[in-house]
Amino acid sequence: MAGNTFGTLFRVSTFGESHGKAIGGVIDGCPAGLTLDLEAIQADLDRRKPGQSAIVTQRKEPDVVEFFSGIFEGKTTGTPIGFAIHNTNQKSRDYGHIKDSYRPSHADYVYDQKYGFRDYRGGGRSSARETASRVVAGAIAKQCLAGVEINAFVSQVGAIKLESSYQSLDLSLTESNAVRCPDQETASKMETYIKSIKKEGDTIGGVITCVAKNVPVGLGEPVFDKLHAALGGAMLSINAVKGFEFGSGFEGVTMKGSAHNDAFNSDGSTKTNFSGGVQGGISNGMDIYFNIAFKPVATVIQEYDTIDKEGNAVKAQGKGRHDPCVAPRAVPIVEAMTALVLADFMLLNRATKL
Amino acid sequence: MAGNTFGTLFRVSTFGESHGKAIGGVIDGCPAGLTLDLEAIQADLDRRKPGQSAIVTQRKEPDVVEFFSGIFEGKTTGTPIGFAIHNTNQKSRDYGHIKDSYRPSHADYVYDQKYGFRDYRGGGRSSARETASRVVAGAIAKQCLAGVEINAFVSQVGAIKLESSYQSLDLSLTESNAVRCPDQETASKMETYIKSIKKEGDTIGGVITCVAKNVPVGLGEPVFDKLHAALGGAMLSINAVKGFEFGSGFEGVTMKGSAHNDAFNSDGSTKTNFSGGVQGGISNGMDIYFNIAFKPVATVIQEYDTIDKEGNAVKAQGKGRHDPCVAPRAVPIVEAMTALVLADFMLLNRATKL
Amino acid sequence: MAGNTFGTLFRVSTFGESHGKAIGGVIDGCPAGLTLDLEAIQADLDRRKPGQSAIVTQRKEPDVVEFFSGIFEGKTTGTPIGFAIHNTNQKSRDYGHIKDSYRPSHADYVYDQKYGFRDYRGGGRSSARETASRVVAGAIAKQCLAGVEINAFVSQVGAIKLESSYQSLDLSLTESNAVRCPDQETASKMETYIKSIKKEGDTIGGVITCVAKNVPVGLGEPVFDKLHAALGGAMLSINAVKGFEFGSGFEGVTMKGSAHNDAFNSDGSTKTNFSGGVQGGISNGMDIYFNIAFKPVATVIQEYDTIDKEGNAVKAQGKGRHDPCVAPRAVPIVEAMTALVLADFMLLNRATKL
Amino acid sequence: MAGNTFGTLFRVSTFGESHGKAIGGVIDGCPAGLTLDLEAIQADLDRRKPGQSAIVTQRKEPDVVEFFSGIFEGKTTGTPIGFAIHNTNQKSRDYGHIKDSYRPSHADYVYDQKYGFRDYRGGGRSSARETASRVVAGAIAKQCLAGVEINAFVSQVGAIKLESSYQSLDLSLTESNAVRCPDQETASKMETYIKSIKKEGDTIGGVITCVAKNVPVGLGEPVFDKLHAALGGAMLSINAVKGFEFGSGFEGVTMKGSAHNDAFNSDGSTKTNFSGGVQGGISNGMDIYFNIAFKPVATVIQEYDTIDKEGNAVKAQGKGRHDPCVAPRAVPIVEAMTALVLADFMLLNRATKL
Repeated sequence: MAGNTFGTLFRVSTFGESHGKAIGGVIDGCPAGLTLDLEAIQADLDRRKPGQSAIVTQRKEPDVVEFFSGIFEGKTTGTPIGFAIHNTNQKSRDYGHIKDSYRPSHADYVYDQKYGFRDYRGGGRSSARETASRVVAGAIAKQCLAGVEINAFVSQVGAIKLESSYQSLDLSLTESNAVRCPDQETASKMETYIKSIKKEGDTIGGVITCVAKNVPVGLGEPVFDKLHAALGGAMLSINAVKGFEFGSGFEGVTMKGSAHNDAFNSDGSTKTNFSGGVQGGISNGMDIYFNIAFKPVATVIQEYDTIDKEGNAVKAQGKGRHDPCVAPRAVPIVEAMTALVLADFMLLNRATKL
Repeated sequence: MAGNTFGTLFRVSTFGESHGKAIGGVIDGCPAGLTLDLEAIQADLDRRKPGQSAIVTQRKEPDVVEFFSGIFEGKTTGTPIGFAIHNTNQKSRDYGHIKDSYRPSHADYVYDQKYGFRDYRGGGRSSARETASRVVAGAIAKQCLAGVEINAFVSQVGAIKLESSYQSLDLSLTESNAVRCPDQETASKMETYIKSIKKEGDTIGGVITCVAKNVPVGLGEPVFDKLHAALGGAMLSINAVKGFEFGSGFEGVTMKGSAHNDAFNSDGSTKTNFSGGVQGGISNGMDIYFNIAFKPVATVIQEYDTIDKEGNAVKAQGKGRHDPCVAPRAVPIVEAMTALVLADFMLLNRATKL
Repeated sequence: MAGNTFGTLFRVSTFGESHGKAIGGVIDGCPAGLTLDLEAIQADLDRRKPGQSAIVTQRKEPDVVEFFSGIFEGKTTGTPIGFAIHNTNQKSRDYGHIKDSYRPSHADYVYDQKYGFRDYRGGGRSSARETASRVVAGAIAKQCLAGVEINAFVSQVGAIKLESSYQSLDLSLTESNAVRCPDQETASKMETYIKSIKKEGDTIGGVITCVAKNVPVGLGEPVFDKLHAALGGAMLSINAVKGFEFGSGFEGVTMKGSAHNDAFNSDGSTKTNFSGGVQGGISNGMDIYFNIAFKPVATVIQEYDTIDKEGNAVKAQGKGRHDPCVAPRAVPIVEAMTALVLADFMLLNRATKL
Repeated sequence: MAGNTFGTLFRVSTFGESHGKAIGGVIDGCPAGLTLDLEAIQADLDRRKPGQSAIVTQRKEPDVVEFFSGIFEGKTTGTPIGFAIHNTNQKSRDYGHIKDSYRPSHADYVYDQKYGFRDYRGGGRSSARETASRVVAGAIAKQCLAGVEINAFVSQVGAIKLESSYQSLDLSLTESNAVRCPDQETASKMETYIKSIKKEGDTIGGVITCVAKNVPVGLGEPVFDKLHAALGGAMLSINAVKGFEFGSGFEGVTMKGSAHNDAFNSDGSTKTNFSGGVQGGISNGMDIYFNIAFKPVATVIQEYDTIDKEGNAVKAQGKGRHDPCVAPRAVPIVEAMTALVLADFMLLNRATKL
């Protein structure tokens, strides 16, 4: 089972490389009868697309999605939704700088070892371009989740950290700046920092925080398919992700149980939410929130030492138009994967009781 | 698909509650012809079992595994391996203290909401007792992974943190103390601290670090089933886990790409290993290492406020024999889940090339 | 994915060989809140068990099922139902007659080739004993399908064929004779014939017809998981099955479309039912009916020519207590597999609409 | 899990309706390094396409496949192969004759009931047009199966039956006539008969026989995923199929075990092959052969009685260009599904032994 299918009941199978004809996928299991807002889908794609601001890659890719099936008279039909995003930017370029050597901390080397093959024109399937298909599927999943609000935002870039908790932020401000940090002052610092990193030809890591509100009680399938385990696996499948924590996360390790336990209100909600909206792997109706760590992008616009296919030491030079920090464009991807998990578990939960 | 099956080709389906007749499972897809070391399986179970030291729960559960099938003349036959661990400690006790109210930060409330049912005799299926079945399956998976070494250990308890990197530690010392920390001095501090926490009737969180050496290049199925995504999902499915990070993890966020990139040696190995042995979702032959955050156990031996099924405020009192810190007993569980993931991906990788 | 799991949402994973300690399985995804009739489960097992009449194998196996989990206070809890049927008849016998040679048309040879292993004590995992686990799971699935009636019966033994259509039969008479044919006169002929075959030390094939009434409209997941495709795959997975046809089946080939089309009544039901209750892979509310062909059992109590492991020609002699015709004992197995498919698709169908 | 994915390791997910923009799919798990013969894929599509002869539908659909990904420099890369076949014949037509009523023995009624939706422009997803995607995937699967020969042919049309066994036929003659029956005399009779049926505005059923030679020993995953169970399920998922039998099939029911058992030769091959190349669910190296029954196509060019959405009796009139007998065009579909099953099990079998 090569790993290009995500989900059990609401599932998407994706295809496509960065320099092939098109990327796209098949969404199977989207319930019938959903009136689709196609503009909302394209809007999420636009949030992910290159060239949208000064702090992201300046490649030009319009990323327009074409739907082939599964929609009739504006509604989902219950049959698979096939779609493609045509690659318009696949002109034959000079790949000499990467064709003959492996780029450090890229997937070049392991793809070659695993598949006996290398798409030297770019990252191929390991390119983050692949995530545009996830955004399409996730935008449809969002529309299945009436009432649920999913908001991701950048909470850290390098050492610049948003110190406020998400509850004190106005998440509607996330899209008001290029960094996608809802605190304008911090956003401004992050933006300045990313620009300086870019000038150096270097890159920097970041953290995205995601909050899902109004998730119904009961989502999650213990013991292996706990809701947070599925969310964590989904986030870790996004390019450049190195860590995932939810609720109290790594900091909760230092707390005592007596302080960490979330006392109940009479309606079953809890006074605190160190649990992060999930107990025993099942949503409890409280906000689900989690952090995702992104490493610095591997492509630096500098000369570097590496090896060629025969293992000889060579010097190479990073080129091209790349993101100095992946986090701002990854915000809609995080939301998309969150929506895919929640929509799937919402459907799975329909089979729980007789 | 209720979530009690783990894995694709090497897969285990588990069953059982803390106070039922037995727990156990079916391992399907274990390759034929493996000479099984049954004592090694029981040894891993013994590392997980209650009552093994002064800093863990004092419950008495022998946890002896009985195999029903799939083994003939000492070897795996390729057919499913059915097994059970009989519950010897299921005598009818006084559950009054938990029957009539929900324990905060336990799964009582969400199980009741999701399944319309509550096994008030204990945690039921949400009890960590379930993980004994994982240890059995993982111990068999380990034996499929000739040459691969998987070592987990406790690297943090509360604020007491093992500051040395795993490379400077002698991991063979992990089992030399009750905490399972390979640095004796730190282990001693942790042990003292856990004992004081226990005396308070309270609990504390911890971190486990796991290292897998000699993993062959090529394991991992992009784009969704990246090796680290599967490992992360597996770890997050263990009771009380709140976070997962591999390689540079959350700290890597503050690094620049030029410093974070792992330069190649001529044999394809890398001079540094911020990638944590995985690039683009595929193992690169370097050590795979990751950290797992465990929250403080929810059961505190103190009086607490909560609600009953009707939402009325009640007072309740924690009782029983529970772990003050879950990390020491979770070490073999982490290793087991790691082995299950690696064995599965080792088999999946056989289908990669023609 | 070794093939010991059946179903997607309502799924069973089975284990066990004919001469091991026990057979059994894990049922995952049985909805919570079902009051289980345990006697009905045992009753179905009794219909399958050896020694129940003069025309079946005279082996003594009580086949009592023990449940380990997933049931509390008489109801399903939504957690996995683990169970075992202990093998009481596994005494060390003289296997010399089969240990050193392959029995023709048994699975001995292919198991040895595939797994590099042979359980020479009997059929091992290829023994029809395995199907007792299916009967347990199927009996529980039946109880999830309130209102649906599933009735299988023997409609042919050798050339003796029940010529009446199922509509003209009183299916409540199926259990009134040892052959499980609801027409007493035909049953009597079949029984006499099986006895004569048995006396010869030979075996004979048969056909089972199965009818499912009151199946709701809408079950089936086109295009690959059409309801009849799942039923057919399920039936063909039963030992000794060589064919499956539903509705008009192989005879329908000779019909013209104008005669074969099922005209509608005003309520959506149809005047005829050549479709067999399924159109386009989806149940249409009419009776689902199908036939299953069983080959003659391979074990004949005669001397035969065969080869040993090295390919040398040897003579061997069939021994033991075997079924002269597999059909009578297969009736509850057919019903069980039908129920497993229907329960699974009933749950899957809950995800169809928003 | 809506049912639009087929296979475990070699898997295809398809999309598309008869009157949408395109049909197509994603093939995931095709091993890397296979040099693809793209013309052979198109050639199989051409065998399925409408308008190829006087006895099939005269619709004009060029059915040219476009590949989006997964192929680089003529070879498979191990990443998903996305493809589409654009619908060129989707002009707005007069659907009045079907929009307002349900066609008997079509999927109109059940789709409407299940999905709450009806694509009245044609069969939508239930149209056999969907099978073109299977042919693409199957043609690639064939190329993974070096040495294996898969040949299907029409062996019965209405009551006209090819009486010779497949061994006595020259299967290379199958493509020499429009019916795809390798016996010219029988083919001629079938062709004449189909033409007369067509003139009546009626349709007729048929049988396809398929033979797979040189399948290696060991394919099949007992107990549920027996090779013949997977083949049967695959065939039954093809539009209009009502039955499947392999080896001795329904006729074998009348045989005695002593006659039915396949005696071994010294090399493990068998003197007879009533088993049809599969024993205990595992291929034994002998020819795998099976028959598939196709019902008469439901669309007859005649006036008929039916109901509208409200259940009122209405008269309607079959129109359009339809196949009088589905069997000739279904031959490449049967081969495709056979190849998909065999390629998948070939990969699965790589995980059997350590």
